[in-house]
Amino acid sequence: MSQSIRVTVWNEGVHEKTHEEVKRVYPHGMHAVLAQALQEAGFFVRTATLDDPEHGLTEEVLAQTDVLTWWGHMAHHAVQDTIVDRVVKRVQEGMGLIVLHSGHMSKPFLRLMGTTGALKWREAGEKERLWVVNPAHPIAAGLPEYIEIPHEEMYGEHFDIPAPDELVFISWFKGGEVFRSGCCWTRGAGKIFYFRPGHETYPTYYQKEVQQVIINAVKWAAPGNLPAITYWHKPNPLEEL
Amino acid sequence: MSQSIRVTVWNEGVHEKTHEEVKRVYPHGMHAVLAQALQEAGFFVRTATLDDPEHGLTEEVLAQTDVLTWWGHMAHHAVQDTIVDRVVKRVQEGMGLIVLHSGHMSKPFLRLMGTTGALKWREAGEKERLWVVNPAHPIAAGLPEYIEIPHEEMYGEHFDIPAPDELVFISWFKGGEVFRSGCCWTRGAGKIFYFRPGHETYPTYYQKEVQQVIINAVKWAAPGNLPAITYWHKPNPLEEL
Amino acid sequence: MSQSIRVTVWNEGVHEKTHEEVKRVYPHGMHAVLAQALQEAGFFVRTATLDDPEHGLTEEVLAQTDVLTWWGHMAHHAVQDTIVDRVVKRVQEGMGLIVLHSGHMSKPFLRLMGTTGALKWREAGEKERLWVVNPAHPIAAGLPEYIEIPHEEMYGEHFDIPAPDELVFISWFKGGEVFRSGCCWTRGAGKIFYFRPGHETYPTYYQKEVQQVIINAVKWAAPGNLPAITYWHKPNPLEEL
Amino acid sequence: MSQSIRVTVWNEGVHEKTHEEVKRVYPHGMHAVLAQALQEAGFFVRTATLDDPEHGLTEEVLAQTDVLTWWGHMAHHAVQDTIVDRVVKRVQEGMGLIVLHSGHMSKPFLRLMGTTGALKWREAGEKERLWVVNPAHPIAAGLPEYIEIPHEEMYGEHFDIPAPDELVFISWFKGGEVFRSGCCWTRGAGKIFYFRPGHETYPTYYQKEVQQVIINAVKWAAPGNLPAITYWHKPNPLEEL
Repeated sequence: MSQSIRVTVWNEGVHEKTHEEVKRVYPHGMHAVLAQALQEAGFFVRTATLDDPEHGLTEEVLAQTDVLTWWGHMAHHAVQDTIVDRVVKRVQEGMGLIVLHSGHMSKPFLRLMGTTGALKWREAGEKERLWVVNPAHPIAAGLPEYIEIPHEEMYGEHFDIPAPDELVFISWFKGGEVFRSGCCWTRGAGKIFYFRPGHETYPTYYQKEVQQVIINAVKWAAPGNLPAITYWHKPNPLEEL
Repeated sequence: MSQSIRVTVWNEGVHEKTHEEVKRVYPHGMHAVLAQALQEAGFFVRTATLDDPEHGLTEEVLAQTDVLTWWGHMAHHAVQDTIVDRVVKRVQEGMGLIVLHSGHMSKPFLRLMGTTGALKWREAGEKERLWVVNPAHPIAAGLPEYIEIPHEEMYGEHFDIPAPDELVFISWFKGGEVFRSGCCWTRGAGKIFYFRPGHETYPTYYQKEVQQVIINAVKWAAPGNLPAITYWHKPNPLEEL
Repeated sequence: MSQSIRVTVWNEGVHEKTHEEVKRVYPHGMHAVLAQALQEAGFFVRTATLDDPEHGLTEEVLAQTDVLTWWGHMAHHAVQDTIVDRVVKRVQEGMGLIVLHSGHMSKPFLRLMGTTGALKWREAGEKERLWVVNPAHPIAAGLPEYIEIPHEEMYGEHFDIPAPDELVFISWFKGGEVFRSGCCWTRGAGKIFYFRPGHETYPTYYQKEVQQVIINAVKWAAPGNLPAITYWHKPNPLEEL
Repeated sequence: MSQSIRVTVWNEGVHEKTHEEVKRVYPHGMHAVLAQALQEAGFFVRTATLDDPEHGLTEEVLAQTDVLTWWGHMAHHAVQDTIVDRVVKRVQEGMGLIVLHSGHMSKPFLRLMGTTGALKWREAGEKERLWVVNPAHPIAAGLPEYIEIPHEEMYGEHFDIPAPDELVFISWFKGGEVFRSGCCWTRGAGKIFYFRPGHETYPTYYQKEVQQVIINAVKWAAPGNLPAITYWHKPNPLEEL
């Protein structure tokens, strides 16, 4: 079953070219590390980056994508609005979307949420501990009760998002903050998962538990056999008036 | 307390000028009827329409508005994007927003929801019955267990909205459909209520129970004494690392 | 995968023995019809009834049950409290529970909900139409946008339940009522789905779409690979104080 | 308006008699401190304790109570089931309930939740910081963005509760845990708020911000003018069949 899920791993891919520190951690880009983990989980995986024509997100690619993962940071503004429209439309039609870390300020996420995405942040390489608060949720499957990440950027509340339909993880940071780190929403027929970890200067996406969360999220977000919804304007009622 | 809530009743106001049938029902515009009901409830009320400069929604007016009600239909496209930006921003900062009937396709509502707002509809003047499904909710205060509207336009599911944070009413239509008719969300510090009834050719907004719902919604959506949230990037943690 | 889900179909089984009208519709009991549909879907299926020793719900049977379906009506009071305790505990530990129709007043359901389960009802054999209001939900997979049941008992709002975590169906009844007909909750590690249709005098459980909903619900409610949650009292913190 | 809200502050009141350490902090019982704060906020306040006849919660007292606050710990088992039935029934009918700290294992709370209430805990007098995660919620009104409590017992996730309808606070603990510290639910017509702080050996309930949360919660939980809901079995439909 999961073999047939088609994932497109999108990465801005700028830090890895411009920052030596990031290049050392992700020499082939973060997308390469994520793609390998997802492939090993049995998914069909493509990658795409900002510099590809149409950012690698052509109509054709999106039409063949069940779940899109999104990492962006310093070049959110450079993502073309027509591509954003396309991504948003595909999510509303049923494509899953997994927004990672600094993607909280990406255009597609903000368009789907209707909030500012604002939060507190600090780059101090401190410890993050993500606690499972919804053990029945499929995204928590097979995990320990918490995931420890030795060094991460801090994101702190208030995180300006709509109240999640389902909250799966809450992060503790050594410096004194908490954060809703794993959040689920539905928009139209599409499922969206926001997952906090993944600062570009730390090897977070190599960590097996972090990969497991993303693998679980892909399975959860993949569209099933969607019911045949119609939207119409018709004069005739179903029942006699 | 409720005396000090400042409400701005926004109405597109086009149907009332161009359709004789609507003019007969609302000779001074729908906004006049709503404004009177809200004034009698003790609120401070302004009105504003599409044709006013800046649609009547200047920075100053919005800064002095606790709750904005919105009715639009045939001229959604004519609402300027800068005004939409302004409304959305004010909601995120705490202004309440009550979206009425065909406002489900208005720019501010779609921007705040991140969905298409699509639904089924039929103009057959059929009976609508709104059932209270959340008796503990302040928007249901003082109501009977259902509200009957003798003649209304039908709106049917699936209604493409984010799952409401709170669902207050579900409508039954004689022709065979149902609809989530009273839906609450929060975006940032702002509360949003969508209320279905109010087709322009029926005297729905004269009905006392319908007015009561809107009065209750104004009280619910008015911002309280908001906590002092900050969003920042700071190097120093609250706790020693 | 779905082959390995172990379902126990529980039926009070009294109406089928005492009411000729019901016997005609379900000569071998409702449980027989449900069990067959679930078996054909590839699940491992057991049945159990009120008259079995320990109502057929021994510790051993429950330990080997991934999802329990529950139909009861006239003999709710006859279900022993020790068996109710056992069922509730297993749900909290991860067993799925699908509560059908008049099960809204069953002891396990009320214990897990904390509400009265009260509603309106009428036996007039009227038409019910269940509308999908959450097309992204796995319980709606493969369905048409509504299910029509030609003759059913009416259940009407207000239905006294906790606000569902997810609402999948809303029913329209010809006589003028609506009902939240497909509702999801989580209690501990266990998922619960309430599904309205299934009055004993109508052949509702023979209807393919109704069976499809129950099959989908079994897949949704089956526990996955639950994370290893612990509850403890320990003197030592994870971090230095 | 708030003058007329009638609050009954219930306290087990055992620790204060048996533990010198607690007696020093709360010489007249925790209920005395809470009652004074609520009185100063303008509510009409009664207190009641375990040792009072019927635990001070007679039919008459409950009938005249808009909001009940509940603190219990070592004597949960000693609360009589008939009184628990009475409290649960009144909540379902509309009385607000504010459950404090170790009340997470009290009989009324568990009966209304349907979960085990389990969690992790540690008595190490560590720092707790409660972050506002829902700035639009009336229970957060007038607060700073976090509340710091210098010394508290730790409660850690997973907290076995139903997913809150609204989540207002998340706690950070110095020792490494997080906790959903301010949680809202509705049961029937009654509103329930769980608020974590308040270990008996610390002066938590003297802290102004903690008192402010409880005052806000009383206002939020007080029943309004409830709609006239009926539950019935009637043969006649509202509409012609």
